[in-house]
Amino acid sequence: MSLSKNNLKLITSLQQKKYRQKHNLFVAEGIKVIMELLSSTIKVSHIFTTDESFLALSEVDFTVITDLELKKISTLKNPNKVLGLFKIPEKINVNKDNFTVALDEVNDPGNLGTIIRLCDWFGISELVCSKNTVDCYNQKVVQSTMGSLTRVNISYVDLPEFLSNTKLPVYTADMEGSNVYKVSLPEKAILVMGNEANGISNEVSEIVKHKLTIPRFGENQQTESLNVATATAILLSEFKRGLE
Amino acid sequence: MSLSKNNLKLITSLQQKKYRQKHNLFVAEGIKVIMELLSSTIKVSHIFTTDESFLALSEVDFTVITDLELKKISTLKNPNKVLGLFKIPEKINVNKDNFTVALDEVNDPGNLGTIIRLCDWFGISELVCSKNTVDCYNQKVVQSTMGSLTRVNISYVDLPEFLSNTKLPVYTADMEGSNVYKVSLPEKAILVMGNEANGISNEVSEIVKHKLTIPRFGENQQTESLNVATATAILLSEFKRGLE
Repeated sequence: MSLSKNNLKLITSLQQKKYRQKHNLFVAEGIKVIMELLSSTIKVSHIFTTDESFLALSEVDFTVITDLELKKISTLKNPNKVLGLFKIPEKINVNKDNFTVALDEVNDPGNLGTIIRLCDWFGISELVCSKNTVDCYNQKVVQSTMGSLTRVNISYVDLPEFLSNTKLPVYTADMEGSNVYKVSLPEKAILVMGNEANGISNEVSEIVKHKLTIPRFGENQQTESLNVATATAILLSEFKRGLE
Repeated sequence: MSLSKNNLKLITSLQQKKYRQKHNLFVAEGIKVIMELLSSTIKVSHIFTTDESFLALSEVDFTVITDLELKKISTLKNPNKVLGLFKIPEKINVNKDNFTVALDEVNDPGNLGTIIRLCDWFGISELVCSKNTVDCYNQKVVQSTMGSLTRVNISYVDLPEFLSNTKLPVYTADMEGSNVYKVSLPEKAILVMGNEANGISNEVSEIVKHKLTIPRFGENQQTESLNVATATAILLSEFKRGLE
């Protein structure tokens, strides 16, 4: 067996969102990530691997390929033995009663991946994204979530509409907000985090009632802002620390 | 004026640490980062720019280059008008009385950049790195610090020796440590954070007395670990929140 031209074309096309949606497939790579996905509820479509011993572990359709072929289909600097095609899971409705993280046009795949891991860590099952947020089946997101992708329910929604219809209090990070260390935070809320350069959109800003500030310390008042993923980490920690 | 072959060769060589050390120079790109560096105590060596209007702002040696030439010397996907060579500042001794973040073999330039921004945000002036931690003048670090590089004193040291000689209490993140939300933390300490895959080294682990755990929430007990930068964010927030 080896890699067919059609498969090469299919796998390469899946680097683009429109082809992921057309074929309802996404790509994951590396033994660790693939093993996490195989043991999750996400359904595998096909595995391409250079290492047959890997195949003994699971009943899946597979093709043995050469190192050179793997290199052709991989987007990693150092391809790691296996690349898999997985079925994009069917959408599950957002559970509107749970603590929810909402993202408004987060563009960087690494940031989305880190935030998905944070949700998983803090036991947050609902992640809601504006339609212009980076796709969670983008390969860089898949690789950086380290399996957390399978444990967080991610939905792409009309964010202003979603936020207008919630019964939960809606919070965001803002330089002009209340000191997060000094306010009392509810057990259930929606935390909206914004775009890397521009923060949350005006439309969303008008809906958000509660603005939180992570205070700056020391004399250096020039630090622009925290990265969206580190700010999310600190705010989620503040929401959750009282529950421990 | 245009880009000479020698300059092309010099700038490209500075992507490697050994040439940065040989020439005592590092590279920064983009108007925002360059402006931050020009207004700091870091000394500029030479500026290459496609946009003359930029030059009116500062008295520096410069060369006007074409877009194509900028593309040749840039490591960015979208080069932004200017690339500068700056002098690596002389080492300042670590102030051993200050709160210090210490890194043990952090490899990823993005993580180091994020941690430098966090130090700047939380008013931490001392960042101490093991010699095998990624170089802070690596171009990806320089670009991701957004100017914070100029406000944090970064030293590369023999970390076990440094930690053995401190009078401050030494903390690290560990899955088997004390719940960080439930312990009382000192105002001044050293917080050691470890390598992305392996955590802190055995040698360092033997010296560290205080181990802190960021508790996991919810039923998902499979989340592997938090990214080193997000864990640093949460722990620094915990050290500092009581001081506000």
